[in-house]
Amino acid sequence: MTLTELFVVVPAGGSGTRLWPLSRASNPKFLHALTGTDRSLLQATFDRLTPLAPPERLLVVTGTAHAAGVARQLPDLPDSNILVEPFARDSCAAIALAAAVIERRSPGAVMASFAADHLITDTDEFARTVERAVAGAREGYLMTIGITPTRPETGYGYLRLSAQAERGVIQPVLEFKEKPSLEVASRYVSSGSYLWNASMFVWRTDLFLAELAARRPDVAGPIAAIAAAWDTDEQEDVLAELWPTVPKVAVEYAVMEPAAEEGKVATVPGDFGWSDIGDFETVVRLLGTDVGQGGRSFSPATRSRAVVVDGEDVIVVPNSGRLVATLGVRDLIVVDTDDAVLVCDRDRAQDIKRLTEILREHGEADYL
Amino acid sequence: MTLTELFVVVPAGGSGTRLWPLSRASNPKFLHALTGTDRSLLQATFDRLTPLAPPERLLVVTGTAHAAGVARQLPDLPDSNILVEPFARDSCAAIALAAAVIERRSPGAVMASFAADHLITDTDEFARTVERAVAGAREGYLMTIGITPTRPETGYGYLRLSAQAERGVIQPVLEFKEKPSLEVASRYVSSGSYLWNASMFVWRTDLFLAELAARRPDVAGPIAAIAAAWDTDEQEDVLAELWPTVPKVAVEYAVMEPAAEEGKVATVPGDFGWSDIGDFETVVRLLGTDVGQGGRSFSPATRSRAVVVDGEDVIVVPNSGRLVATLGVRDLIVVDTDDAVLVCDRDRAQDIKRLTEILREHGEADYL
Repeated sequence: MTLTELFVVVPAGGSGTRLWPLSRASNPKFLHALTGTDRSLLQATFDRLTPLAPPERLLVVTGTAHAAGVARQLPDLPDSNILVEPFARDSCAAIALAAAVIERRSPGAVMASFAADHLITDTDEFARTVERAVAGAREGYLMTIGITPTRPETGYGYLRLSAQAERGVIQPVLEFKEKPSLEVASRYVSSGSYLWNASMFVWRTDLFLAELAARRPDVAGPIAAIAAAWDTDEQEDVLAELWPTVPKVAVEYAVMEPAAEEGKVATVPGDFGWSDIGDFETVVRLLGTDVGQGGRSFSPATRSRAVVVDGEDVIVVPNSGRLVATLGVRDLIVVDTDDAVLVCDRDRAQDIKRLTEILREHGEADYL
Repeated sequence: MTLTELFVVVPAGGSGTRLWPLSRASNPKFLHALTGTDRSLLQATFDRLTPLAPPERLLVVTGTAHAAGVARQLPDLPDSNILVEPFARDSCAAIALAAAVIERRSPGAVMASFAADHLITDTDEFARTVERAVAGAREGYLMTIGITPTRPETGYGYLRLSAQAERGVIQPVLEFKEKPSLEVASRYVSSGSYLWNASMFVWRTDLFLAELAARRPDVAGPIAAIAAAWDTDEQEDVLAELWPTVPKVAVEYAVMEPAAEEGKVATVPGDFGWSDIGDFETVVRLLGTDVGQGGRSFSPATRSRAVVVDGEDVIVVPNSGRLVATLGVRDLIVVDTDDAVLVCDRDRAQDIKRLTEILREHGEADYL
């Protein structure tokens, strides 16, 4: 089996609010070097995927604010493979647009979709897992690559299988589960028959578009018309007319959950050192180094320093060239950027999104 | 009585380590606008003193690193009134040098000496108190202006009087007391016969120099030779030869304490809203405004913003133009400057000096 006909789609959206002030609406996390190298998350994603599909068959779907950033960071990506949404309409619209454009360019192709802001340490195993998922897609399944859970995480959705997950083995997905409570998550993980949903999808574009058309004609209709005009001189007019009519809905909710109920969804359990770079705890746990007394630090630009004196469980993310020093503090996250500084209790890290809303109310939207 | 013959000396030294990273060796606190206006502490001191002595009779003693800063901040001060020490030799050397230069320029003058980094709210009462101290100096006393204590402060030395302090009345000083314990300080304050020593001195320069010569010829000798060469083409050679030989000693220890034992020191209790801008607590208590939920902030340059969400007793000193946001933290001091950020437990504020020593050990002396 080869991956010759595989297309890869990378939805690159979301501002990464829980990483504020590092991640901004104008400079979202996927453009940052949160990888332990000087490559951005998007570039690392590109590097990981181009062995599976050359740049000619790799498409990035992004927003108007980030089209230039994507283009500059990925010079090998053809212009026509950067699909720019006029404004965000959630994941179903982004993925359906890519599927429809691919289907138009290469009918009956297989496409795989991976987020722009995940880290994967074992790229060989990742590639093998994708190959298996492609095999499942050729058999007609809407495939998802589920992640073998390593902890009872409450921040992700889960996939329920009919049996114990087996690495590398195609298995039916019975159900998509929303983010669970800690108790429920613990039960999921100990059962061995649940996987994390990392929104990694592999399918034949014609089958996906047919499922979409059957279930959500309100999405499929305008997307089909937009795709028909794509790469023509009518693209902009059609986008302007129809894009605002596309409903905002997640692809899981619109297609995958109902399809799973009908036995059309399968998964390949993946175990390749996957991480969602969603918050500072994760960033510093994965990429940081111990600094001083009781501190751990990660500087994306590797140009800033942290000094922690008499600290305990202090996380420092210096990213402005400045020195960040802490004295006698504990359980803090300190993030330093060129125009804003955050000092946050570690237990409140999930509320950073709320803080950004308060800043907006205070007229500080320039900092978001 | 007039102050026609009064000379005023402002020793402008010390880097204000407890205000790091706001105050630096290269940019010490007296050059900062820690006054609630755009005037620096030094400029506010100048403004307060020029009604007592015109710039021609006002001398600033400072170090090589700050001569330019002093000159730029005080354009009305004659060049020849900026006495630049080759390196710091403690307060006795600085004050004796000024006294000797004044005595050479105007024999038998009265001089008053005030620190460059104190805040005084009632300048009229301050001026009246100085006038009374000048009267005491003319009577032959080595005068000090003691501050009526408002709390059992353990960070200052105290003056012991023979009786209850009376505002505006010249009274003998029996003894200079070192910084006391809290218990002792409480006893001092409740007794009513102790004043804070703010190192404000007023005396006839000839009498001070005679006391110095009698008690510390090792200081008086080289200072006399240096002063004799001052304003001549030999000044630099004599400074180079003799300044390194001047012992490092505080003027209280060298002159005032032994003179007090002989009944030669008196004080005028002062009550004019005096503050020592020694730490962030004081800065923000005196000059700050409440921000957000549980925060208090002071921005010396009034160009930076702080947003405190779900905070408690949070002190923010933003001074780089950036936004500083805190979320869910308490009892913290956050200081933001152009090249360094400090996050410090409030109970550890007195250890900031230690932190700067650690930074030096870590090779971060550039930030000091």
